[in-house]
Amino acid sequence: MNKPDCLIIGFGPCGIEAAIYLKRYGFNPIVVGKDGGALEKAHQIENYYGIESITGKELLEKGIEQAKHLGIEVVNDEVLAIETDEGFKVIGVHHIWQPKTILLAVGASRASLSSASAYEGKGVSYCAICDGFFYRKKKVAIIGNGAYMLHELEILKQMISDLVIFTDGKPLMVDVGDTKVIKDKILRFEGEGKLQNIVTEKESYPVEGCFIAIGSASGFTLAKHLGIAMKENSIMVNEQYMTNITGIFAGGDCIGGLLQVSKAIADGALAATEISKYLKKS
Amino acid sequence: MNKPDCLIIGFGPCGIEAAIYLKRYGFNPIVVGKDGGALEKAHQIENYYGIESITGKELLEKGIEQAKHLGIEVVNDEVLAIETDEGFKVIGVHHIWQPKTILLAVGASRASLSSASAYEGKGVSYCAICDGFFYRKKKVAIIGNGAYMLHELEILKQMISDLVIFTDGKPLMVDVGDTKVIKDKILRFEGEGKLQNIVTEKESYPVEGCFIAIGSASGFTLAKHLGIAMKENSIMVNEQYMTNITGIFAGGDCIGGLLQVSKAIADGALAATEISKYLKKS
Repeated sequence: MNKPDCLIIGFGPCGIEAAIYLKRYGFNPIVVGKDGGALEKAHQIENYYGIESITGKELLEKGIEQAKHLGIEVVNDEVLAIETDEGFKVIGVHHIWQPKTILLAVGASRASLSSASAYEGKGVSYCAICDGFFYRKKKVAIIGNGAYMLHELEILKQMISDLVIFTDGKPLMVDVGDTKVIKDKILRFEGEGKLQNIVTEKESYPVEGCFIAIGSASGFTLAKHLGIAMKENSIMVNEQYMTNITGIFAGGDCIGGLLQVSKAIADGALAATEISKYLKKS
Repeated sequence: MNKPDCLIIGFGPCGIEAAIYLKRYGFNPIVVGKDGGALEKAHQIENYYGIESITGKELLEKGIEQAKHLGIEVVNDEVLAIETDEGFKVIGVHHIWQPKTILLAVGASRASLSSASAYEGKGVSYCAICDGFFYRKKKVAIIGNGAYMLHELEILKQMISDLVIFTDGKPLMVDVGDTKVIKDKILRFEGEGKLQNIVTEKESYPVEGCFIAIGSASGFTLAKHLGIAMKENSIMVNEQYMTNITGIFAGGDCIGGLLQVSKAIADGALAATEISKYLKKS
Protein backbone atom coordinates (compact mmCIF):
# COMPACT_ATOMS: atom_id res chain seq x y z
CA MET A 1 0.00 0.00 0.00
CA ASN A 2 1.41 3.28 -1.12
CA LYS A 3 1.17 6.60 0.71
CA PRO A 4 2.10 9.44 -1.66
CA ASP A 5 1.97 13.10 -0.68
CA CYS A 6 -0.51 13.52 -3.49
CA LEU A 7 -2.37 11.05 -5.67
CA ILE A 8 -3.10 12.71 -8.98
CA ILE A 9 -5.98 11.10 -10.83
CA GLY A 10 -5.56 11.69 -14.55
CA PHE A 11 -2.38 11.75 -16.64
CA GLY A 12 -3.43 14.43 -19.09
CA PRO A 13 -1.76 17.87 -19.22
CA CYS A 14 -3.10 19.10 -15.86
CA GLY A 15 -2.20 15.95 -13.94
CA ILE A 16 1.29 15.62 -15.39
CA GLU A 17 2.15 19.33 -15.04
CA ALA A 18 0.99 19.22 -11.42
CA ALA A 19 3.15 16.14 -10.79
CA ILE A 20 6.21 17.87 -12.27
CA TYR A 21 5.70 20.91 -10.05
CA LEU A 22 5.04 18.83 -6.91
CA LYS A 23 8.16 16.76 -7.56
CA ARG A 24 10.21 19.92 -7.94
CA TYR A 25 8.68 21.33 -4.76
CA GLY A 26 10.17 18.28 -3.02
CA PHE A 27 7.06 16.12 -2.71
CA ASN A 28 6.32 12.59 -3.79
CA PRO A 29 3.30 12.52 -6.13
CA ILE A 30 1.90 9.45 -7.88
CA VAL A 31 -0.11 9.84 -11.09
CA VAL A 32 -2.78 7.30 -11.95
CA GLY A 33 -4.61 7.32 -15.24
CA LYS A 34 -6.57 5.12 -17.51
CA ASP A 35 -6.87 6.94 -20.81
CA GLY A 36 -6.10 10.27 -22.42
CA GLY A 37 -9.69 11.44 -22.58
CA ALA A 38 -10.53 14.17 -25.06
CA LEU A 39 -6.90 15.04 -25.78
CA GLU A 40 -6.15 11.54 -27.00
CA LYS A 41 -8.72 12.05 -29.74
CA ALA A 42 -7.30 15.41 -30.91
CA HIS A 43 -5.90 14.84 -34.38
CA GLN A 44 -3.67 17.87 -34.60
CA ILE A 45 -2.85 20.49 -31.97
CA GLU A 46 -1.44 23.68 -33.43
CA ASN A 47 -2.16 26.22 -30.73
CA TYR A 48 0.13 25.03 -27.97
CA TYR A 49 2.99 27.44 -27.33
CA GLY A 50 6.38 26.04 -28.26
CA ILE A 51 5.18 23.01 -30.22
CA GLU A 52 4.11 23.81 -33.75
CA SER A 53 2.10 20.72 -34.53
CA ILE A 54 1.50 17.49 -32.64
CA THR A 55 -1.24 14.91 -32.25
CA GLY A 56 -3.03 14.71 -28.92
CA LYS A 57 -1.78 11.16 -28.48
CA GLU A 58 1.85 12.20 -29.01
CA LEU A 59 1.56 15.11 -26.59
CA LEU A 60 0.07 12.82 -23.94
CA GLU A 61 2.88 10.33 -24.38
CA LYS A 62 5.54 13.07 -24.28
CA GLY A 63 4.05 14.36 -21.02
CA ILE A 64 4.00 10.95 -19.37
CA GLU A 65 7.61 10.25 -20.46
CA GLN A 66 8.68 13.67 -19.17
CA ALA A 67 7.21 12.91 -15.75
CA LYS A 68 8.80 9.46 -15.64
CA HIS A 69 12.21 10.90 -16.48
CA LEU A 70 11.87 13.15 -13.44
CA GLY A 71 11.36 10.03 -11.32
CA ILE A 72 7.60 10.40 -10.98
CA GLU A 73 5.59 7.19 -10.73
CA VAL A 74 2.89 7.11 -13.43
CA VAL A 75 0.52 4.17 -13.03
CA ASN A 76 -1.96 2.74 -15.52
CA ASP A 77 -4.98 1.85 -13.46
CA GLU A 78 -8.64 2.67 -13.15
CA VAL A 79 -9.78 4.28 -9.94
CA LEU A 80 -12.99 2.65 -8.72
CA ALA A 81 -13.65 4.43 -5.46
CA ILE A 82 -12.32 7.01 -3.04
CA GLU A 83 -13.00 6.52 0.66
CA THR A 84 -12.67 9.40 3.10
CA ASP A 85 -13.31 7.76 6.48
CA GLU A 86 -9.86 7.98 8.07
CA GLY A 87 -7.68 9.95 5.74
CA PHE A 88 -8.04 9.10 2.06
CA LYS A 89 -8.14 5.64 0.57
CA VAL A 90 -8.17 5.39 -3.20
CA ILE A 91 -9.12 2.01 -4.61
CA GLY A 92 -8.03 1.07 -8.12
CA VAL A 93 -8.51 -2.19 -10.00
CA HIS A 94 -4.90 -3.19 -9.25
CA HIS A 95 -3.74 -0.80 -6.49
CA ILE A 96 -4.78 0.83 -3.25
CA TRP A 97 -3.28 4.17 -2.20
CA GLN A 98 -3.52 6.19 1.00
CA PRO A 99 -2.51 9.65 -0.17
CA LYS A 100 -2.24 12.78 1.99
CA THR A 101 -3.96 14.79 -0.73
CA ILE A 102 -5.79 14.06 -3.98
CA LEU A 103 -5.81 16.05 -7.20
CA LEU A 104 -8.71 15.31 -9.54
CA ALA A 105 -7.46 16.00 -13.06
CA VAL A 106 -10.05 13.79 -14.67
CA GLY A 107 -10.97 15.78 -17.75
CA ALA A 108 -14.34 16.99 -18.92
CA SER A 109 -17.52 14.98 -18.67
CA ARG A 110 -18.59 12.88 -21.62
CA ALA A 111 -21.01 14.81 -23.75
CA SER A 112 -22.84 11.67 -24.82
CA LEU A 113 -24.73 11.45 -21.55
CA SER A 114 -25.24 15.13 -20.95
CA SER A 115 -29.00 14.70 -21.42
CA ALA A 116 -29.05 12.54 -18.29
CA SER A 117 -28.11 15.48 -16.09
CA ALA A 118 -31.64 16.89 -16.33
CA TYR A 119 -32.82 13.86 -14.35
CA GLU A 120 -30.18 13.92 -11.64
CA GLY A 121 -31.94 13.24 -8.36
CA LYS A 122 -35.06 12.45 -10.40
CA GLY A 123 -34.12 8.91 -11.32
CA VAL A 124 -30.54 9.38 -12.44
CA SER A 125 -27.81 8.62 -9.91
CA TYR A 126 -24.02 8.38 -9.95
CA CYS A 127 -23.68 6.33 -6.79
CA ALA A 128 -24.97 2.79 -6.28
CA ILE A 129 -24.05 2.72 -2.60
CA CYS A 130 -25.74 6.06 -1.92
CA ASP A 131 -28.96 5.62 -3.85
CA GLY A 132 -29.39 1.93 -4.72
CA PHE A 133 -31.67 1.36 -1.76
CA PHE A 134 -34.29 3.80 -3.08
CA TYR A 135 -34.85 1.67 -6.19
CA ARG A 136 -35.25 -1.69 -4.47
CA LYS A 137 -38.41 -2.89 -6.21
CA LYS A 138 -38.03 -0.86 -9.37
CA LYS A 139 -36.80 -1.38 -12.90
CA VAL A 140 -33.31 0.03 -12.99
CA ALA A 141 -30.72 0.66 -15.70
CA ILE A 142 -26.99 0.85 -15.26
CA ILE A 143 -24.96 2.51 -17.99
CA GLY A 144 -21.38 1.49 -18.61
CA ASN A 145 -19.23 -1.22 -20.12
CA GLY A 146 -16.09 -1.65 -18.01
CA ALA A 147 -14.67 -2.40 -14.59
CA TYR A 148 -16.32 0.57 -12.99
CA MET A 149 -19.77 -0.46 -14.23
CA LEU A 150 -19.12 -3.95 -12.85
CA HIS A 151 -18.16 -2.46 -9.48
CA GLU A 152 -21.45 -0.56 -9.33
CA LEU A 153 -23.45 -3.49 -10.71
CA GLU A 154 -22.31 -5.76 -7.90
CA ILE A 155 -23.54 -3.27 -5.33
CA LEU A 156 -26.88 -2.84 -7.09
CA LYS A 157 -27.41 -6.59 -7.50
CA GLN A 158 -27.64 -6.93 -3.72
CA MET A 159 -30.66 -4.61 -3.69
CA ILE A 160 -32.30 -4.72 -7.10
CA SER A 161 -33.51 -7.66 -9.12
CA ASP A 162 -34.83 -5.98 -12.26
CA LEU A 163 -31.55 -4.66 -13.69
CA VAL A 164 -30.53 -3.95 -17.27
CA ILE A 165 -27.11 -2.82 -18.53
CA PHE A 166 -26.79 -0.26 -21.33
CA THR A 167 -23.32 -0.11 -22.94
CA ASP A 168 -24.31 2.96 -25.01
CA GLY A 169 -22.92 1.56 -28.26
CA LYS A 170 -19.69 0.33 -26.74
CA PRO A 171 -18.51 -3.31 -26.50
CA LEU A 172 -19.01 -4.96 -23.12
CA MET A 173 -15.56 -5.38 -21.56
CA VAL A 174 -16.46 -7.41 -18.45
CA ASP A 175 -18.35 -10.56 -17.53
CA VAL A 176 -21.74 -9.59 -16.10
CA GLY A 177 -23.19 -13.06 -15.72
CA ASP A 178 -26.84 -13.32 -16.72
CA THR A 179 -27.76 -9.63 -16.38
CA LYS A 180 -29.52 -8.34 -19.49
CA VAL A 181 -27.35 -6.15 -21.74
CA ILE A 182 -28.50 -3.56 -24.32
CA LYS A 183 -25.67 -2.57 -26.64
CA ASP A 184 -27.49 0.10 -28.71
CA LYS A 185 -26.43 3.71 -28.60
CA ILE A 186 -28.50 5.89 -26.27
CA LEU A 187 -30.20 8.85 -27.95
CA ARG A 188 -31.87 10.54 -25.01
CA PHE A 189 -33.51 10.33 -21.60
CA GLU A 190 -37.24 11.04 -21.30
CA GLY A 191 -39.78 11.65 -18.59
CA GLU A 192 -42.19 14.18 -17.12
CA GLY A 193 -40.59 15.53 -13.93
CA LYS A 194 -38.73 12.25 -13.41
CA LEU A 195 -36.95 9.70 -15.56
CA GLN A 196 -39.34 7.34 -17.35
CA ASN A 197 -37.63 6.13 -20.51
CA ILE A 198 -34.20 5.53 -21.96
CA VAL A 199 -34.43 5.87 -25.72
CA THR A 200 -31.80 4.10 -27.83
CA GLU A 201 -31.42 4.21 -31.58
CA LYS A 202 -33.61 1.10 -31.78
CA GLU A 203 -36.14 1.18 -28.95
CA SER A 204 -37.52 2.99 -25.92
CA TYR A 205 -37.00 1.27 -22.55
CA PRO A 206 -39.16 2.18 -19.56
CA VAL A 207 -37.05 2.52 -16.38
CA GLU A 208 -37.50 4.13 -12.96
CA GLY A 209 -33.89 4.52 -12.05
CA CYS A 210 -30.62 4.82 -13.92
CA PHE A 211 -27.10 4.55 -12.55
CA ILE A 212 -24.34 6.14 -14.62
CA ALA A 213 -21.12 4.14 -14.42
CA ILE A 214 -19.77 4.85 -17.85
CA GLY A 215 -16.13 5.06 -18.79
CA SER A 216 -13.75 5.46 -15.95
CA ALA A 217 -14.90 6.20 -12.44
CA SER A 218 -12.04 8.69 -12.42
CA GLY A 219 -14.46 11.18 -13.83
CA PHE A 220 -17.40 12.98 -12.39
CA THR A 221 -18.89 9.90 -10.94
CA LEU A 222 -16.06 9.78 -8.41
CA ALA A 223 -16.62 13.40 -7.53
CA LYS A 224 -20.35 12.85 -7.15
CA HIS A 225 -19.81 9.80 -4.96
CA LEU A 226 -17.71 11.87 -2.63
CA GLY A 227 -20.27 14.62 -2.37
CA ILE A 228 -18.00 17.09 -4.12
CA ALA A 229 -19.88 20.25 -5.02
CA MET A 230 -20.49 20.65 -8.74
CA LYS A 231 -21.77 23.44 -10.92
CA GLU A 232 -23.00 22.90 -14.46
CA ASN A 233 -21.14 19.60 -14.79
CA SER A 234 -17.88 21.07 -13.48
CA ILE A 235 -16.20 20.44 -10.14
CA MET A 236 -16.30 23.56 -8.01
CA VAL A 237 -12.99 24.70 -6.52
CA ASN A 238 -11.97 27.73 -4.49
CA GLU A 239 -9.05 30.05 -5.34
CA GLN A 240 -6.69 27.44 -3.90
CA TYR A 241 -8.04 24.81 -6.34
CA MET A 242 -9.54 22.93 -3.38
CA THR A 243 -12.95 21.30 -3.62
CA ASN A 244 -15.43 21.47 -0.76
CA ILE A 245 -13.62 18.43 0.72
CA THR A 246 -10.45 19.49 2.56
CA GLY A 247 -7.40 17.91 0.95
CA ILE A 248 -9.10 17.09 -2.36
CA PHE A 249 -8.12 19.47 -5.15
CA ALA A 250 -9.17 19.63 -8.79
CA GLY A 251 -7.87 21.21 -11.97
CA GLY A 252 -7.98 21.08 -15.76
CA ASP A 253 -11.05 20.48 -17.90
CA CYS A 254 -13.02 19.00 -14.99
CA ILE A 255 -13.26 22.38 -13.27
CA GLY A 256 -14.59 24.04 -16.42
CA GLY A 257 -13.42 27.15 -18.25
CA LEU A 258 -11.48 26.99 -21.48
CA LEU A 259 -11.01 23.31 -22.35
CA GLN A 260 -7.49 23.77 -23.72
CA VAL A 261 -4.05 22.33 -22.97
CA SER A 262 -2.72 25.79 -22.06
CA LYS A 263 -5.34 26.34 -19.39
CA ALA A 264 -5.02 22.76 -18.12
CA ILE A 265 -1.28 23.02 -17.49
CA ALA A 266 -1.69 26.39 -15.78
CA ASP A 267 -4.25 24.73 -13.49
CA GLY A 268 -1.74 21.93 -12.89
CA ALA A 269 1.09 24.32 -11.94
CA LEU A 270 -1.16 26.49 -9.79
CA ALA A 271 -2.92 23.58 -8.07
CA ALA A 272 0.45 21.96 -7.32
CA THR A 273 1.63 25.21 -5.77
CA GLU A 274 -1.44 25.28 -3.53
CA ILE A 275 -1.12 21.58 -2.66
CA SER A 276 2.52 22.21 -1.73
CA LYS A 277 1.46 25.01 0.65
CA TYR A 278 -1.25 22.76 2.11
CA LEU A 279 1.17 19.86 2.67
CA LYS A 280 3.72 22.13 4.35
CA LYS A 281 1.07 23.38 6.78
CA SER A 282 -0.38 19.97 7.68
CA MET B 1 -0.09 53.05 -40.55
CA ASN B 2 -1.38 49.70 -39.51
CA LYS B 3 -4.76 48.97 -37.94
CA PRO B 4 -4.74 45.48 -36.46
CA ASP B 5 -7.67 44.00 -34.54
CA CYS B 6 -5.31 43.65 -31.62
CA LEU B 7 -1.81 44.95 -30.99
CA ILE B 8 -0.09 42.59 -28.62
CA ILE B 9 2.81 44.19 -26.77
CA GLY B 10 5.31 41.52 -25.79
CA PHE B 11 6.38 38.41 -27.71
CA GLY B 12 6.88 36.14 -24.74
CA PRO B 13 4.64 33.10 -24.06
CA CYS B 14 1.50 35.09 -23.20
CA GLY B 15 1.71 37.42 -26.20
CA ILE B 16 2.47 34.70 -28.73
CA GLU B 17 -0.16 32.27 -27.39
CA ALA B 18 -2.75 35.07 -27.50
CA ALA B 19 -1.76 35.87 -31.10
CA ILE B 20 -2.14 32.23 -32.13
CA TYR B 21 -5.62 32.06 -30.59
CA LEU B 22 -6.73 35.40 -32.08
CA LYS B 23 -5.50 34.35 -35.53
CA ARG B 24 -7.43 31.10 -35.26
CA TYR B 25 -10.52 32.98 -34.08
CA GLY B 26 -10.31 34.81 -37.42
CA PHE B 27 -8.73 38.08 -36.29
CA ASN B 28 -5.66 39.93 -37.40
CA PRO B 29 -3.26 40.47 -34.48
CA ILE B 30 0.18 42.07 -34.65
CA VAL B 31 2.78 41.26 -32.02
CA VAL B 32 5.43 43.82 -31.16
CA GLY B 33 8.31 43.06 -28.83
CA LYS B 34 11.75 44.22 -27.95
CA ASP B 35 13.29 41.50 -25.82
CA GLY B 36 12.43 38.26 -24.14
CA GLY B 37 12.46 39.62 -20.60
CA ALA B 38 12.92 37.19 -17.76
CA LEU B 39 12.33 34.11 -19.93
CA GLU B 40 15.28 34.97 -22.17
CA LYS B 41 17.55 34.67 -19.14
CA ALA B 42 16.21 31.28 -18.04
CA HIS B 43 19.01 28.79 -18.56
CA GLN B 44 17.00 25.61 -18.52
CA ILE B 45 13.25 25.09 -18.38
CA GLU B 46 12.25 21.61 -17.30
CA ASN B 47 8.75 22.09 -16.00
CA TYR B 48 6.91 22.97 -19.20
CA TYR B 49 4.49 20.24 -20.25
CA GLY B 50 5.46 18.49 -23.46
CA ILE B 51 9.04 19.82 -23.71
CA GLU B 52 11.50 18.01 -21.49
CA SER B 53 14.29 20.56 -21.45
CA ILE B 54 14.84 23.82 -23.32
CA THR B 55 16.53 27.17 -22.72
CA GLY B 56 14.35 30.23 -22.33
CA LYS B 57 15.89 31.74 -25.42
CA GLU B 58 15.11 28.66 -27.52
CA LEU B 59 11.52 28.54 -26.29
CA LEU B 60 11.05 32.24 -27.11
CA GLU B 61 12.42 31.71 -30.61
CA LYS B 62 10.24 28.63 -31.14
CA GLY B 63 7.17 30.61 -30.11
CA ILE B 64 7.93 33.50 -32.46
CA GLU B 65 8.59 31.13 -35.37
CA GLN B 66 5.37 29.27 -34.61
CA ALA B 67 3.37 32.51 -34.80
CA LYS B 68 5.09 33.58 -38.02
CA HIS B 69 4.32 30.23 -39.65
CA LEU B 70 0.64 30.86 -38.93
CA GLY B 71 0.93 34.13 -40.83
CA ILE B 72 1.07 36.38 -37.77
CA GLU B 73 3.14 39.55 -38.08
CA VAL B 74 5.75 39.69 -35.31
CA VAL B 75 7.59 43.02 -35.22
CA ASN B 76 10.82 43.92 -33.40
CA ASP B 77 10.24 47.41 -32.10
CA GLU B 78 10.11 49.33 -28.86
CA VAL B 79 6.80 50.88 -27.90
CA LEU B 80 7.35 54.41 -26.63
CA ALA B 81 3.85 55.61 -25.96
CA ILE B 82 0.17 54.71 -26.17
CA GLU B 83 -2.33 57.47 -26.88
CA THR B 84 -6.01 56.99 -26.16
CA ASP B 85 -7.57 60.20 -27.47
CA GLU B 86 -9.52 58.90 -30.48
CA GLY B 87 -9.22 55.17 -30.46
CA PHE B 88 -5.79 53.80 -29.69
CA LYS B 89 -2.53 55.01 -31.18
CA VAL B 90 0.59 53.06 -30.29
CA ILE B 91 3.88 54.76 -31.09
CA GLY B 92 7.00 52.68 -31.55
CA VAL B 93 10.50 53.76 -32.54
CA HIS B 94 9.90 52.59 -36.12
CA HIS B 95 6.13 52.08 -36.40
CA ILE B 96 2.79 53.60 -35.51
CA TRP B 97 -0.27 51.40 -35.08
CA GLN B 98 -3.96 52.17 -34.58
CA PRO B 99 -5.26 48.93 -33.13
CA LYS B 100 -8.87 48.19 -32.13
CA THR B 101 -7.65 46.55 -28.92
CA ILE B 102 -4.35 46.23 -27.06
CA LEU B 103 -3.02 43.30 -25.07
CA LEU B 104 -0.26 44.14 -22.61
CA ALA B 105 1.88 41.02 -22.26
CA VAL B 106 4.90 42.93 -21.07
CA GLY B 107 6.29 40.61 -18.42
CA ALA B 108 7.06 41.30 -14.80
CA SER B 109 8.60 44.52 -13.54
CA ARG B 110 12.35 44.72 -13.22
CA ALA B 111 13.39 43.88 -9.69
CA SER B 112 16.43 46.17 -9.82
CA LEU B 113 14.32 49.28 -9.27
CA SER B 114 11.78 47.80 -6.91
CA SER B 115 13.05 50.04 -4.10
CA ALA B 116 11.81 53.05 -6.09
CA SER B 117 8.20 51.97 -5.69
CA ALA B 118 8.16 53.13 -2.06
CA TYR B 119 8.53 56.69 -3.36
CA GLU B 120 5.89 56.55 -6.07
CA GLY B 121 3.99 59.83 -5.90
CA LYS B 122 6.60 61.02 -3.40
CA GLY B 123 9.21 62.00 -5.92
CA VAL B 124 9.24 58.95 -8.17
CA SER B 125 7.22 59.15 -11.38
CA TYR B 126 6.75 56.99 -14.45
CA CYS B 127 5.38 59.72 -16.70
CA ALA B 128 7.26 62.83 -17.85
CA ILE B 129 4.21 64.32 -19.55
CA CYS B 130 2.01 63.77 -16.50
CA ASP B 131 4.33 64.91 -13.72
CA GLY B 132 7.24 66.84 -15.26
CA PHE B 133 5.60 70.19 -14.56
CA PHE B 134 5.67 69.61 -10.78
CA TYR B 135 9.47 69.46 -10.77
CA ARG B 136 10.16 72.60 -12.81
CA LYS B 137 12.76 74.23 -10.57
CA LYS B 138 14.00 71.09 -8.92
CA LYS B 139 16.91 68.72 -9.28
CA VAL B 140 15.57 65.76 -11.19
CA ALA B 141 16.95 62.35 -12.15
CA ILE B 142 15.85 60.24 -15.08
CA ILE B 143 16.72 56.56 -15.02
CA GLY B 144 17.23 54.68 -18.25
CA ASN B 145 19.65 54.12 -21.07
CA GLY B 146 17.71 53.67 -24.33
CA ALA B 147 15.19 55.11 -26.74
CA TYR B 148 12.45 55.26 -24.15
CA MET B 149 14.61 57.25 -21.74
CA LEU B 150 15.44 59.66 -24.58
CA HIS B 151 11.72 60.07 -25.34
CA GLU B 152 11.05 61.01 -21.73
CA LEU B 153 14.19 63.16 -21.49
CA GLU B 154 13.07 65.34 -24.38
CA ILE B 155 9.77 66.04 -22.65
CA LEU B 156 11.48 66.83 -19.33
CA LYS B 157 14.09 69.10 -20.96
CA GLN B 158 11.30 71.51 -21.94
CA MET B 159 10.43 71.99 -18.28
CA ILE B 160 13.46 71.12 -16.19
CA SER B 161 17.01 72.48 -16.39
CA ASP B 162 18.73 70.54 -13.61
CA LEU B 163 18.55 67.05 -15.05
CA VAL B 164 20.81 64.04 -14.53
CA ILE B 165 20.60 60.66 -16.24
CA PHE B 166 21.28 57.43 -14.33
CA THR B 167 21.91 54.38 -16.56
CA ASP B 168 21.95 52.06 -13.50
CA GLY B 169 25.13 50.28 -14.56
CA LYS B 170 24.07 49.87 -18.19
CA PRO B 171 25.79 51.38 -21.22
CA LEU B 172 24.16 54.52 -22.63
CA MET B 173 22.58 53.54 -25.98
CA VAL B 174 21.46 56.97 -27.21
CA ASP B 175 22.89 60.46 -27.75
CA VAL B 176 21.73 62.69 -24.92
CA GLY B 177 23.73 65.84 -25.87
CA ASP B 178 25.24 67.60 -22.89
CA THR B 179 22.97 66.20 -20.18
CA LYS B 180 24.99 64.79 -17.26
CA VAL B 181 25.14 60.97 -17.15
CA ILE B 182 25.88 58.75 -14.13
CA LYS B 183 26.67 55.19 -15.18
CA ASP B 184 27.10 53.59 -11.74
CA LYS B 185 24.72 50.92 -10.53
CA ILE B 186 21.93 52.17 -8.27
CA LEU B 187 21.85 50.56 -4.83
CA ARG B 188 18.79 52.19 -3.31
CA PHE B 189 16.48 55.18 -2.99
CA GLU B 190 16.44 57.14 0.23
CA GLY B 191 14.34 59.83 1.89
CA GLU B 192 12.11 60.60 4.85
CA GLY B 193 8.52 60.65 3.57
CA LYS B 194 9.69 61.69 0.10
CA LEU B 195 12.59 60.92 -2.20
CA GLN B 196 15.78 62.74 -1.22
CA ASN B 197 18.74 60.67 -2.45
CA ILE B 198 19.67 58.17 -5.09
CA VAL B 199 22.50 56.04 -3.77
CA THR B 200 24.78 54.33 -6.28
CA GLU B 201 27.64 51.97 -5.59
CA LYS B 202 29.98 55.01 -5.59
CA GLU B 203 28.09 58.03 -4.28
CA SER B 204 24.84 59.48 -2.94
CA TYR B 205 23.07 62.01 -5.19
CA PRO B 206 20.52 64.43 -3.72
CA VAL B 207 17.44 64.70 -6.00
CA GLU B 208 13.88 65.92 -5.56
CA GLY B 209 12.32 64.03 -8.43
CA CYS B 210 13.08 60.83 -10.33
CA PHE B 211 11.55 59.63 -13.58
CA ILE B 212 11.83 55.94 -14.29
CA ALA B 213 12.31 55.28 -18.01
CA ILE B 214 14.39 52.17 -17.77
CA GLY B 215 14.41 49.35 -20.29
CA SER B 216 11.49 49.28 -22.62
CA ALA B 217 8.47 51.47 -22.17
CA SER B 218 6.52 48.34 -22.98
CA GLY B 219 6.56 47.56 -19.30
CA PHE B 220 4.84 49.11 -16.38
CA THR B 221 5.77 52.61 -17.34
CA LEU B 222 3.37 52.37 -20.27
CA ALA B 223 0.63 51.13 -18.01
CA LYS B 224 1.28 53.87 -15.51
CA HIS B 225 1.26 56.53 -18.24
CA LEU B 226 -2.13 55.38 -19.31
CA GLY B 227 -3.55 55.50 -15.83
CA ILE B 228 -4.02 51.75 -15.74
CA ALA B 229 -4.88 50.56 -12.24
CA MET B 230 -2.10 48.60 -10.59
CA LYS B 231 -1.85 46.54 -7.44
CA GLU B 232 1.46 45.61 -5.86
CA ASN B 233 3.39 46.18 -9.07
CA SER B 234 0.93 44.14 -11.14
CA ILE B 235 -1.59 45.36 -13.68
CA MET B 236 -5.11 44.84 -12.39
CA VAL B 237 -7.52 43.05 -14.75
CA ASN B 238 -11.09 41.86 -14.37
CA GLU B 239 -12.31 38.33 -15.12
CA GLN B 240 -12.26 39.19 -18.82
CA TYR B 241 -8.56 40.14 -18.60
CA MET B 242 -9.51 43.76 -19.27
CA THR B 243 -7.78 46.60 -17.44
CA ASN B 244 -9.71 49.60 -16.16
CA ILE B 245 -9.36 51.08 -19.69
CA THR B 246 -11.95 49.61 -22.05
CA GLY B 247 -10.25 47.78 -24.93
CA ILE B 248 -6.89 47.39 -23.19
CA PHE B 249 -6.29 43.89 -21.87
CA ALA B 250 -3.35 42.39 -20.00
CA GLY B 251 -2.01 38.92 -19.29
CA GLY B 252 1.06 36.93 -18.29
CA ASP B 253 3.61 37.90 -15.66
CA CYS B 254 2.55 41.57 -15.71
CA ILE B 255 -0.80 40.74 -14.07
CA GLY B 256 0.91 38.83 -11.27
CA GLY B 257 0.27 35.34 -9.94
CA LEU B 258 2.58 32.43 -10.70
CA LEU B 259 5.39 33.76 -12.94
CA GLN B 260 5.59 30.63 -15.06
CA VAL B 261 5.28 29.81 -18.75
CA SER B 262 2.29 27.54 -18.09
CA LYS B 263 0.31 30.31 -16.42
CA ALA B 264 1.39 32.87 -19.03
CA ILE B 265 0.11 30.84 -21.98
CA ALA B 266 -3.16 30.13 -20.20
CA ASP B 267 -3.55 33.89 -19.74
CA GLY B 268 -2.78 34.31 -23.44
CA ALA B 269 -5.40 31.80 -24.56
CA LEU B 270 -8.01 33.12 -22.14
CA ALA B 271 -7.33 36.80 -22.85
CA ALA B 272 -7.51 36.12 -26.61
CA THR B 273 -10.87 34.43 -26.10
CA GLU B 274 -12.15 37.50 -24.25
CA ILE B 275 -10.67 39.91 -26.82
CA SER B 276 -12.37 37.89 -29.53
CA LYS B 277 -15.74 38.26 -27.76
CA TYR B 278 -15.10 41.99 -27.29
CA LEU B 279 -14.20 42.50 -30.97
CA LYS B 280 -17.32 40.64 -32.13
CA LYS B 281 -19.52 42.89 -29.99
CA SER B 282 -17.92 46.20 -31.02
